[in-house]
Amino acid sequence: MLIVQKYGGTSVANAERIKSVAERVSKAAKQGNKVVVVVSAMAGETDKLISLAHQISSNPKEREMDLLLSSGERVTSALTAMAVEELGHKAMALTGRQMGIVTDTVHTKAKIEKITGERAKKALDSGYVVVVAGFQGITESEDVTTLGRGGSDLSAVAIASALDADMCEIYTDVDGVYTADPRIVPEAKKMDKISYEEMLELASLGSKVLQTRSVEFAMKYNVPVVVRSSFNDNPGTLVTKEDEDMEHVVVSGVAHDLNQAKITVMGVPDRPGIAAKLFRGIADANIGVDMIVQNISSDGKATDISFTVPKTDSKKALKLTQDIAKELEARGVDLREDIAKISVVGVGMRTHSGVAAQIFDTLAKHGVNIMAISTSEIKVSCLIEAKYTELAVRVLHDSFELEKAA
Amino acid sequence: MLIVQKYGGTSVANAERIKSVAERVSKAAKQGNKVVVVVSAMAGETDKLISLAHQISSNPKEREMDLLLSSGERVTSALTAMAVEELGHKAMALTGRQMGIVTDTVHTKAKIEKITGERAKKALDSGYVVVVAGFQGITESEDVTTLGRGGSDLSAVAIASALDADMCEIYTDVDGVYTADPRIVPEAKKMDKISYEEMLELASLGSKVLQTRSVEFAMKYNVPVVVRSSFNDNPGTLVTKEDEDMEHVVVSGVAHDLNQAKITVMGVPDRPGIAAKLFRGIADANIGVDMIVQNISSDGKATDISFTVPKTDSKKALKLTQDIAKELEARGVDLREDIAKISVVGVGMRTHSGVAAQIFDTLAKHGVNIMAISTSEIKVSCLIEAKYTELAVRVLHDSFELEKAA
Repeated sequence: MLIVQKYGGTSVANAERIKSVAERVSKAAKQGNKVVVVVSAMAGETDKLISLAHQISSNPKEREMDLLLSSGERVTSALTAMAVEELGHKAMALTGRQMGIVTDTVHTKAKIEKITGERAKKALDSGYVVVVAGFQGITESEDVTTLGRGGSDLSAVAIASALDADMCEIYTDVDGVYTADPRIVPEAKKMDKISYEEMLELASLGSKVLQTRSVEFAMKYNVPVVVRSSFNDNPGTLVTKEDEDMEHVVVSGVAHDLNQAKITVMGVPDRPGIAAKLFRGIADANIGVDMIVQNISSDGKATDISFTVPKTDSKKALKLTQDIAKELEARGVDLREDIAKISVVGVGMRTHSGVAAQIFDTLAKHGVNIMAISTSEIKVSCLIEAKYTELAVRVLHDSFELEKAA
Repeated sequence: MLIVQKYGGTSVANAERIKSVAERVSKAAKQGNKVVVVVSAMAGETDKLISLAHQISSNPKEREMDLLLSSGERVTSALTAMAVEELGHKAMALTGRQMGIVTDTVHTKAKIEKITGERAKKALDSGYVVVVAGFQGITESEDVTTLGRGGSDLSAVAIASALDADMCEIYTDVDGVYTADPRIVPEAKKMDKISYEEMLELASLGSKVLQTRSVEFAMKYNVPVVVRSSFNDNPGTLVTKEDEDMEHVVVSGVAHDLNQAKITVMGVPDRPGIAAKLFRGIADANIGVDMIVQNISSDGKATDISFTVPKTDSKKALKLTQDIAKELEARGVDLREDIAKISVVGVGMRTHSGVAAQIFDTLAKHGVNIMAISTSEIKVSCLIEAKYTELAVRVLHDSFELEKAA
């Protein structure tokens, strides 16, 4: 078997932790597997570098930011390779460039365009354990790029796909995917299995166990992914194609996301092409827009448009929106950061009606006001005031009896 | 003018220090100069990484060690470029690879083979300040290499030569080159000027202001180098070709080196080719041998050979020497680490005799026993017991009246 194992920041936080990662890698290699290891930076390291950059510039250049941030994973890849060698294996550390991870030129949020992986293939065939620095790639013109927060997950899944691996194991500090955040809902259950679609909704809705784009990638290329803990031998959660078993479960989990900010453009003239103009501007700045809500204008003259963006981009998005609003002769722009997005996810929603109604009922019964709603085939998301986050997650988890889930 | 400025670890130790480096860079750029900045890792960073590696492996793989250690300079190059941009300039950080620094494959001590520098030239022509990560290069097969301790000096001098710079300024935490270590000899004087040859002897003899190979490189390619402080505006010490002025000075300085260990092979059969066999073995392991002393065997049968190696390589050298000694049927091998090399340097020695005699007299008068002597045209080095280091430096500085030097 060819296995890709990805270890997050807490799993490689210090020399001792790196040695236990090496033990786990060694075990897989001794069982006759070819092993590719993908590592994140040591926990806290990336934040330390970001803080240094912000001490120097309020708006550091993104090309240099990528060069800066990519260093953390180079450190852990080298250390991990040393630790694996120490256990009697041959090991080779490869940077994003040496792995042949070619990306577009959108610094700090680059997209992988291709992975050649020639060197890794040769090394694997010669009996090496290959240790790849996650989170990073290189443009055609040889500039270093990074893949955005949690990008090492994407590195791992993309490498698994490029090398046609049998399994991509994502090691983290939790036992797997839960029906809700166990810190908020102590009764939350670990799921044994979850579909790509559900995982995608959960990931994009604030569950931190897997980065959204990595799930999209896994789904697109059908890469079997296991999320499990690097601190024990529990089996974790398998993320895979939807199967018949899963359809019996209406709701799989409740997720919350405190990293979104809401921008409202008030009094927008109700003409065709207005929304396009607004969101084109935001997209050109590489800011991801999540929920978009537009009310039909009652008088046919002006309407309000609300949307959410990542909090990290809120200032930039606000400035852009204000510029565009002026052009559009809108009445004003409002930014709210004290919001939470609560989402209920489940493939069973496709065949079961009434889930949305049950959500709205439950929240209303506990006095939680809903600011915006957005739905997909397998999830319902509500924007609420941030202070109600824990309450909302608990009552929804309870309402759908998720503590009884398998 | 095209100026290369190199800043050492203490000069980029934190965000504040990096900002003052940027101020100095900005000043040079505003005067109309093209500026290339070469930076070391933040003070302490490289040691921290080495310590991490040794927590993981007693003998970490050198290829991975280079990948690990090269990260520190990438961090400071990115941060310094950001700081220079913040002052209104265009700035571009370049890694060793992006600078086109191609080295041989001797990991942790690589030699620069060529510097293409195409990207730097283009950037300079477009008005950028270029900030290069020092200490690192890349092999033809795209593996990261490092140039050994103090390698950023070499990066700076080699880049100055490749770009045909008018001046290479080495910024450090001292005001320049002194007649002796001011911590040992408070009367030590800063020199305004020193010849490449003298600087080379001082550098190889433990003076830490410039790395030996960088001086060799500067001498070979005639790169004018200034050593000065990044903490003030004092003019520093110019390292340049020998001129007439200098010849009047018999002795320029006294240096000491505590980083050498002495290995003695006892009872070596006195046959041709023995020394060659011994030192070939050491050289093949990329260990630099400094002093070599062989006594003529009185009985024509067996002799002792002593030599010094860097303390960091002493264990490795001892092991190698023991293996070779066995093969040669030598009587035994002895390692001493409590030694110091004291050297007196000056171009005037070429035309003045009696310097060596004065050194031996002075040391003898103060009860310092000499274990080995080695001389060149412009220096005399003595190996003594480490505990006499300060005493020896002070009495020699005094004896040659260096406190009166310009």
